[in-house]
Amino acid sequence: MAEAQITRAHGSGGLYTHRLISNLFRQVFSNSILDALLDSAIIDSHQGKIAFTTDSHVVKPIFFPNDNIGSLAVNGTINDLAVCGATPLFLSCALIIEEGFSYADLEKIIESMQAAAQAAGVQIVTGDTKVVGHGEADGIFINTSGIGVINRNINLRPECLASGDKIIVSGFLGEHEAAIIQARLNLPVETNIASDCAALNSLIAPLLENELNLKLMRDPTRGGLATTLNEFVHAQNVGIIITENCIPIRDTVRGLCEPLGFDPLYLASEGKVVIVVGPEDAEKALSILKSHPLGKDAAIVGEITSDPPGKVLLKTQIGTYRLLDMLTGEMLPRIC
Amino acid sequence: MAEAQITRAHGSGGLYTHRLISNLFRQVFSNSILDALLDSAIIDSHQGKIAFTTDSHVVKPIFFPNDNIGSLAVNGTINDLAVCGATPLFLSCALIIEEGFSYADLEKIIESMQAAAQAAGVQIVTGDTKVVGHGEADGIFINTSGIGVINRNINLRPECLASGDKIIVSGFLGEHEAAIIQARLNLPVETNIASDCAALNSLIAPLLENELNLKLMRDPTRGGLATTLNEFVHAQNVGIIITENCIPIRDTVRGLCEPLGFDPLYLASEGKVVIVVGPEDAEKALSILKSHPLGKDAAIVGEITSDPPGKVLLKTQIGTYRLLDMLTGEMLPRIC
Repeated sequence: MAEAQITRAHGSGGLYTHRLISNLFRQVFSNSILDALLDSAIIDSHQGKIAFTTDSHVVKPIFFPNDNIGSLAVNGTINDLAVCGATPLFLSCALIIEEGFSYADLEKIIESMQAAAQAAGVQIVTGDTKVVGHGEADGIFINTSGIGVINRNINLRPECLASGDKIIVSGFLGEHEAAIIQARLNLPVETNIASDCAALNSLIAPLLENELNLKLMRDPTRGGLATTLNEFVHAQNVGIIITENCIPIRDTVRGLCEPLGFDPLYLASEGKVVIVVGPEDAEKALSILKSHPLGKDAAIVGEITSDPPGKVLLKTQIGTYRLLDMLTGEMLPRIC
Repeated sequence: MAEAQITRAHGSGGLYTHRLISNLFRQVFSNSILDALLDSAIIDSHQGKIAFTTDSHVVKPIFFPNDNIGSLAVNGTINDLAVCGATPLFLSCALIIEEGFSYADLEKIIESMQAAAQAAGVQIVTGDTKVVGHGEADGIFINTSGIGVINRNINLRPECLASGDKIIVSGFLGEHEAAIIQARLNLPVETNIASDCAALNSLIAPLLENELNLKLMRDPTRGGLATTLNEFVHAQNVGIIITENCIPIRDTVRGLCEPLGFDPLYLASEGKVVIVVGPEDAEKALSILKSHPLGKDAAIVGEITSDPPGKVLLKTQIGTYRLLDMLTGEMLPRIC
């Protein structure tokens, strides 16, 4: 059935976003690079593989615990390159600013972008600024696109997944969205939850350098771990089982979610990576991750299974199995 | 003096945009690639030169005579690559959509993007979709970033300009902004002015293939010809004199501008290029341009002069000279 209007769910990163991609963008734009639907386009050039990605950021509020839209925009695009096995090198910065926006806030945001870029070893090399009238945007929106190079002969695609592969998450999940929820709803919580926003390239690089048998990586942003895992096995002939007990989620995040009816497995992280690795290399990958500050709480949370194909199951704490679907509708808009 | 707020003039492409770039973006982001301030970042990689650019589009109305925001976004980014001497290859498409936007309109826009990309021989290979609430954006904003390769040993920079170089424009100027003015103000004009929105890569390619002594190229978008020429000689030790009689502007555009007090020399084109070429190759460049449908009205409009350095003079129809500054303030917001 044709849809009449774009709804917030189309921007959730979950089921409706995927439908929009499948029913419109892939139908119209279809080409071999786009159709791979990876976090970055992987371009095979005469000279080698280049990764190219884009991400617009509309997070609300613009400043949130531990970070702001500027560092989020830089780290988010770095991560989309890094999870494809690329070394992120160059970013663009395109601003859409609402008339009347504070110049001092713009300075803070630009400085955060540069600090994040420098910390991750990338350069912001080109940009664009548009200003729209009062009420025609909400403060500031930032697009960062990025280019990286892929120096190794790696092939990270869902087609590589095989039964027995292990699933690792690099640390506590859901902290970015939890921080945004807390800031947006002005909740009277005792423990301040800070966003986990961070660049993942230095965490991922040693996994590549050690030539582990990596199958697939993704940063679980919009839609969280549950949606990311569904993307991994969607239309594949393998499934996933993850074990609730093993999934690192802080009590503060659980405590925020419970009264609100949010499921932490669907909350966005902005500084975590989900890695699928061949079973022979799982412990080595875990050990490499744990030796990095961003990966010290990494854990093996589950594995690729032959059954049920295309589905993600959660083995609960009481030993039952629950089907984890992709995020439907949306929990909170404008989290990134 | 520190500015307190972002105003529409900061997005005009003129003086205030340049100040924002100089006082903030260049100060904070400074690196050798960014500092060149070209339409695309020119990245010298081990394998050759890559051009990388970004542009957000916020044009209002979204649909306008001859085109819409989708084809504008594709052609605009193609042109930013082409004027740097690059062969445009890959684009990204990042959408920020206001909740409630018509799905049918989105389909039209996406189809226009693909049609424009195909016509120009480029591929849209990656994308992103964000949805914001009603009243938090104005319909749809589109960012297109792009990658191209530079196969020739060319160096198009203001530093290359020399007294005697000829300035060519590829056709009638200001038609894009005139079309937007007409659509926005709902003017009772007899002659419909259509946007000149077009991809310039096929027009520019033969100039590169013929290895003409090209010095600098730019598409005169926001701020028009006058602003583009000011960018060419800003802080250089050469100036520019252009001859009013030689500048191709249609009577319909003049007729629209006069009662509104707009100067056509400051109106944006979206399918024209301003080229500076060594005098020995000027006629050849003109002849190559005129053999292409997009360049049939090309004209030599002036030249690089040793005096006055850094300034642009217009020789008027009555033989006097008028100083043409960069656009200050803005004429009409959200033209691209």
